[in-house]
Amino acid sequence: MLQPHHDGSPLHVSTLTPSLGDVVRVRLRIPSSLDAPLEVLVRSNPDREPFFNKAVHLGAAGAYDWWEAEIRVANPVHRYRWLVHYASGHTHWINQEGVHAIETRDDADFALVAHPAPPAWATDAVLYQVFPDRFARSEQAATHPTPEWAVAAEWGDAVIGSGPGVSEQLYGGDLAGVEAHLDHLVDLGATVLYLTPVFPGASNHRYNASTFDVVDPLLGGDEALISLVEAAHARGLKVLGDLTSNHTGDTHDWFVAAQADPDALERGFYYFHEGGSYAAWLGHASLPKLNWNSRELRRRFIEGPDSVVGRWLRPPYSLDGWRIDVANMTGRYEDDDLNAEVRQTIRRTMLEINPDTLLLGESTNDATDDFQGDAWHGAMTYANFTRPVWGWLSVPGSAAFGGLGMARSVIPSYSGVDLHAQHQRFIAGIPWRTRLHNMNALDTHDTPRFATNALPGAVPVALGMAVSLPGIPVVWAGDELGLTGVNGEDSRTPMPWDALDDHADALQLHRELLALRASQPALRGGGMRWLHVGEEVLVWVRETSASSVLCVAARGFYDVVVEEGVLWLDGALTRLFGEGGAHVFGDGGLRLTGAGPAFTAWSLPGVEVPRGDGEEELAQLLEENASQDAALAHGEPAEPTLTAAWSKDTLVDP
Amino acid sequence: MLQPHHDGSPLHVSTLTPSLGDVVRVRLRIPSSLDAPLEVLVRSNPDREPFFNKAVHLGAAGAYDWWEAEIRVANPVHRYRWLVHYASGHTHWINQEGVHAIETRDDADFALVAHPAPPAWATDAVLYQVFPDRFARSEQAATHPTPEWAVAAEWGDAVIGSGPGVSEQLYGGDLAGVEAHLDHLVDLGATVLYLTPVFPGASNHRYNASTFDVVDPLLGGDEALISLVEAAHARGLKVLGDLTSNHTGDTHDWFVAAQADPDALERGFYYFHEGGSYAAWLGHASLPKLNWNSRELRRRFIEGPDSVVGRWLRPPYSLDGWRIDVANMTGRYEDDDLNAEVRQTIRRTMLEINPDTLLLGESTNDATDDFQGDAWHGAMTYANFTRPVWGWLSVPGSAAFGGLGMARSVIPSYSGVDLHAQHQRFIAGIPWRTRLHNMNALDTHDTPRFATNALPGAVPVALGMAVSLPGIPVVWAGDELGLTGVNGEDSRTPMPWDALDDHADALQLHRELLALRASQPALRGGGMRWLHVGEEVLVWVRETSASSVLCVAARGFYDVVVEEGVLWLDGALTRLFGEGGAHVFGDGGLRLTGAGPAFTAWSLPGVEVPRGDGEEELAQLLEENASQDAALAHGEPAEPTLTAAWSKDTLVDP
Repeated sequence: MLQPHHDGSPLHVSTLTPSLGDVVRVRLRIPSSLDAPLEVLVRSNPDREPFFNKAVHLGAAGAYDWWEAEIRVANPVHRYRWLVHYASGHTHWINQEGVHAIETRDDADFALVAHPAPPAWATDAVLYQVFPDRFARSEQAATHPTPEWAVAAEWGDAVIGSGPGVSEQLYGGDLAGVEAHLDHLVDLGATVLYLTPVFPGASNHRYNASTFDVVDPLLGGDEALISLVEAAHARGLKVLGDLTSNHTGDTHDWFVAAQADPDALERGFYYFHEGGSYAAWLGHASLPKLNWNSRELRRRFIEGPDSVVGRWLRPPYSLDGWRIDVANMTGRYEDDDLNAEVRQTIRRTMLEINPDTLLLGESTNDATDDFQGDAWHGAMTYANFTRPVWGWLSVPGSAAFGGLGMARSVIPSYSGVDLHAQHQRFIAGIPWRTRLHNMNALDTHDTPRFATNALPGAVPVALGMAVSLPGIPVVWAGDELGLTGVNGEDSRTPMPWDALDDHADALQLHRELLALRASQPALRGGGMRWLHVGEEVLVWVRETSASSVLCVAARGFYDVVVEEGVLWLDGALTRLFGEGGAHVFGDGGLRLTGAGPAFTAWSLPGVEVPRGDGEEELAQLLEENASQDAALAHGEPAEPTLTAAWSKDTLVDP
Repeated sequence: MLQPHHDGSPLHVSTLTPSLGDVVRVRLRIPSSLDAPLEVLVRSNPDREPFFNKAVHLGAAGAYDWWEAEIRVANPVHRYRWLVHYASGHTHWINQEGVHAIETRDDADFALVAHPAPPAWATDAVLYQVFPDRFARSEQAATHPTPEWAVAAEWGDAVIGSGPGVSEQLYGGDLAGVEAHLDHLVDLGATVLYLTPVFPGASNHRYNASTFDVVDPLLGGDEALISLVEAAHARGLKVLGDLTSNHTGDTHDWFVAAQADPDALERGFYYFHEGGSYAAWLGHASLPKLNWNSRELRRRFIEGPDSVVGRWLRPPYSLDGWRIDVANMTGRYEDDDLNAEVRQTIRRTMLEINPDTLLLGESTNDATDDFQGDAWHGAMTYANFTRPVWGWLSVPGSAAFGGLGMARSVIPSYSGVDLHAQHQRFIAGIPWRTRLHNMNALDTHDTPRFATNALPGAVPVALGMAVSLPGIPVVWAGDELGLTGVNGEDSRTPMPWDALDDHADALQLHRELLALRASQPALRGGGMRWLHVGEEVLVWVRETSASSVLCVAARGFYDVVVEEGVLWLDGALTRLFGEGGAHVFGDGGLRLTGAGPAFTAWSLPGVEVPRGDGEEELAQLLEENASQDAALAHGEPAEPTLTAAWSKDTLVDP
C-alpha cells in the first residue's frame, strides 16, 4: 500500500468548513520511491468543466514527498481529484476510492462542501440507540392502561421476533425509565441518546405515528421528554429524536381527516388513487405515504419554527437533532422526486432554530446521491460498514440476515479484501465531512444483533473497527451487554437491568473501546490511510498533526510488514488496546504479528508536514492563482496561469 | 469471459420504450458450467428502496442457462441489477459495469427509461460533422465581403492552428457549398449532417453567436439553410444544428442591450457583478455566461414553438434536432444548478413541435449524471470511447493531446485491458438507450485528428470500433480522406475537393466500415457482450435474435480461444471485414488468430432464447407479480409474492 495518499482531514485540507469562493489548500503525499513526478495537478470540476491547478513540492519526510495546491470553491459541493504525471510517462489519478491508472468518474472525487457545517460536537459523538418500549420501565409505567391494539408483556418475557404479535407485544418501557438509566450511558462512554419514535402510534415501534403533536402518554407524555432531555443535558448528553418523513400511520390525525373527507385539506398530504386506495410504504396500507407536493404539509411538518421539525427542537423540549426514518424514499413516488426539497427544508428549519443540531438520515443501501452535504450530516446506512463487517466476521453461512437490501437470509462470506473493496466503493461518493458522521453501526433495531452470528472472539474486532474507522460509533442498547437477536424484531430485547453482573465482560469491552476513541482525537477527526489489506487482516492509521493511531483488525493469523518511512514512528509506539505484536526495525519500519480474531491499536506521534523548499514557489503560485481565480469568477480576461482543461488557444478561441 | 450476461438490448429486455407502470420482462444468461444457481433475482430500487423480483429458469442453450424476471417500471428511470445465489454460497451481482462478488452502487445499475423515447432513426444514425467555414465554398461565397474581424484565407492556405488568427482566419465556406457536396455524404454512408453553428458570430467557429435569429449572411443566410435542409431531406439525410446554451458572444444583441443599460430586461440574461464585470465561459469575456434564472431568457431561447430552439425545427427550416454546446456547464454557476430545468425544457419544446427530433449534448468528460434519459438522447463525450481508443492505438508519448479533461499534452498509453476498464467505467452509469446514442467519435473539431498520432495501420481498428461498439459513429469531415491535425483548431482543415483521388484508400475504408454497420442491424441496436479482453486484442459480439456480428480489434499478435457454446455458431461464420483468422472446433468453439493492428468482423446466426421448461412457472409467477405490483402501486395490502428487501415480518411490522 505504498501509494499516493490524500483524504479530507486537516492534514490534507486547510479547512473542512469553507464558504463559496474561499480558497482552500490541499495536500498530497507521494511515495518518494515511485517514479519522479513531472507534474502534480488538482483537477476540479467548477460548473462541471475540468480545471487544473498546479501543485508545488513542499519537501520530503519519511517515505513521502508532499505537494500542495490551491482550489477556489466554485460550487457548494466542489469536487476534485489528483493527477500525477510521472517521468516514465505513466499517470495516477487519485480519488476517494483509491489510486487509478485510468480516468475516473466525477462522483468518486474528493469534495469540499460549502453548505452550512454540521455541529462540531457530532465528530466526537458516540450514539446510544434506545427503543423506548424495551429500555426501561419507570414506576409510573405500571399505571398506564394497555391500549386496545397491544398485548402486554412482562419484562422477562421472550420477545416475539416474528409472526403475529411482533408489533403488538408491549413491554411498557417509558421515558422516565430512560432518564433513570442515563448514568449507564455516561458510564459506557456514549455522548448522544438516540430515541426511536416517541410519538403515539398503534404499535410498540411507533413508526406509524398517529400524531406528531404530543409525546405518547404511554411513554409519560411531553413532560417526560422535557425532563429526560434536561437530565441528559445536565450530564453533557445530546438527545436525538426520530421522525418519519416518508409516511405516517393510518391512524394519524391527518390521514383520518383525509380519508374521511375527499375535500379535506389533508387529502393532499397523501397519494390517493381513484377508488380510495392510496400509496403506502412497500404497499402496506397501515403506512400511507406522504405527498410532499402539498405546501400545507410542508408548513405543518417541516417548514419553520412552528412545524413538527422545528417545535421539538425549541424549549421546553430542546432536542439536539433528528434521525429521519426512510429518508431514502421520502418524497419519491412514481415521477415525483421531491427528496432534495424536503431534506433541505428540514435542515433550513433546524438552522433557523439552532444551527448546533444534527440531522441524520436513514438510507440503508447506497446513500451517495442524497448525502452530499446539502442537508443530511450523515447516514444510517449499512452498505459501507455494517454489511461488509458482518461478511468478514460472521460464521460462514449464518442465517437470519434479513432485509436491508439483501434478498436471501444468508450473510455472504467476505475476505478482508472484499470488506475493504466494498467499504471504499460505498464511501467513494461521500464527502469526507459527511463520512465522519455516517453511523458505524454493528446492528440496530432493524437488524439481527452482530453478536448473534459473530465468529468466536470477533466482537472486539468489529467494535474496534466501529470506533476507529471514520464515522459515528453506534451502540444499540443491549449490545454492550452482549445480547443477541436473530432479526430486527427479535433484537428489540428488554434490557436486563437486574442481571448486569452477568454481562460484565461485554460491558467492560465496550467501555474500553469507547474510551479509546474518546482519548484519541485522531480516531474521531483524523485522516484515514490504509496500510495493508489482506484476507485475514486489515491495517490502517488515523492521523493528525498532533498524534496518530495505528489499528490492526485481524480475523486470522497475520504477519505484516509496514515499510520504513510509511509511518512517523520516531521510536515511540504505545499500545492502546489489544495484544497484537509490533516490532520496529530499521528507520521506522514495522512488523506486525498476531492471531485473530483480535483488534489492536497503538498510539504514534503526529504527522509533520515538510514546509521546506516549496515556500517561495508556493507564495508565487498562490499570487498567480488569485489573479486567475478572480478572472474566472468575474469574467475579466486574464492571462491564465493555472492550467485549464482546454489549451490556451482554445481558451481564447473556443 | 465466461460469465453471466445481461444488457439493455431486445434479447434481454422486452421493450426499450416502456411507460411508467408498465411491466417489462428482463433476461439473464448464466454459464451452465458455473455453480448451480439457488436463486436468481432482479433487484430494483423503486422510490430508492430495494425490491427483489424472482426470475424463473427458461432453459439451456449452448454454454448458458437463461432466466427471466419481470419488473414494474415504478419511476421514470427504473434501475435494476441481478443477484445470483449459487449453491456453494457465493453470490454474483451483475450490473452495467460487469460481474461482482461484492455489493454494487446504485448508479451502475441497468436502467429502464420511461421518458419519451429518442427518434427511431437515431439508432441507425451515422453523423457527418461539418464546420461550415471549412467544408466547401459555393460560387456565391466569393461575393461576400470579408468582415472587419476576419482575415480572408484562400482554400489552399495552411490552417492557423494556434496563436493569433486562429479564430479570425476565414476561408469562406458556406451552406450552398455544403449542399453541393451532399452526395459525398450519401456515398460515404452518412445519414445525418451535423453542422456546427450557422448563426453569425465574430469568429470562424461561430460559437460566439451575435444572434440566434438569422443564419449568418456569410453562409448564405436563412434561404441557404432552407435549401440545404430540403436537399438533405430529399436524399434521406437528417440535419442537426448546434446551439450554445451556456453562453452567447459578447456581440450578441441580448448582451449588447444588457451591457448598455443596467435596467434592460436582458440584464437578467447574464451574471453581472458589481462594477460591471460578468461571468463568462472559463473567464473569457467574449463569451458571457447565460443566467437561466431569467424567465424571459427561457421564453426567448428554449420555451415553446417561437423560441430559438423551437423556431428552427419548424418549417421552413425543419432541422431534425440539436447538438447543444457545453451542455455540461449550462445553467451551472456558483450555487445555481438549473441544468436539469434547461435541458428538460429544451426537450419539451422539441417534443411539442416534432417528437421525431434528436437532442445531443456536449459533455466532454463524465456524462453520467445529466444523461439519464430525461432530455439528452446521447452525449458528445470523450471519456468512454475517444480517449481510451486514443490511449490504445496512438504512438506512445504522442504530444498534442490538448484539453478535453486532460492536463498535459500527452496521450497516456493504454493496454486493451485499460481501454476496456475505462469504457466500462464510463458507460456503467448510462442507460442502454442513451448509450446507443452517445457519439463514438475518433475526433471532432475540438481535438487533434485521430490519424495524426495513430499507430501505423491503426485507423481501421479505431474506425472498426466506432462502427461496432454501441453508439453513433461520427465522421469529422476530412477524416474520411485521412487528413491530420495536431489540435482542435489545426484539424479544422478545408476539404481538398480537388484532390479526392489522393485519398482514395482512406475514403474506401470509411465507405466499407460504414456499409458494414448499415448492413448489420446487430451493430446498431444489438446487445453487447465482451468475449475476450487482452493487452493486445479485444473481442466482442453484438447480438440480436436474427443475426450477430463477432468483432476482433487487435493492436498486436493474438491467439484467442472462445469456448464451446459461448457463441451460436451453427457452422456458419461469414467474414464481413478484415483478414483475421477463425477456426471452428468441437461444438462451436472458436480459435481467433492474427496480427494487429487489424479489425475483423464476422456474421453469425442470431441468438435463440430457450423457452422450454420455464413457461408454466413463468406464467404463474407473472400472475403473482401482477397482483403484488398492483398492491405496491395502490397501497392495497396483499400477500407479498415478490421478495421485498425487508423480511415479510418487517413488511407487516416496520
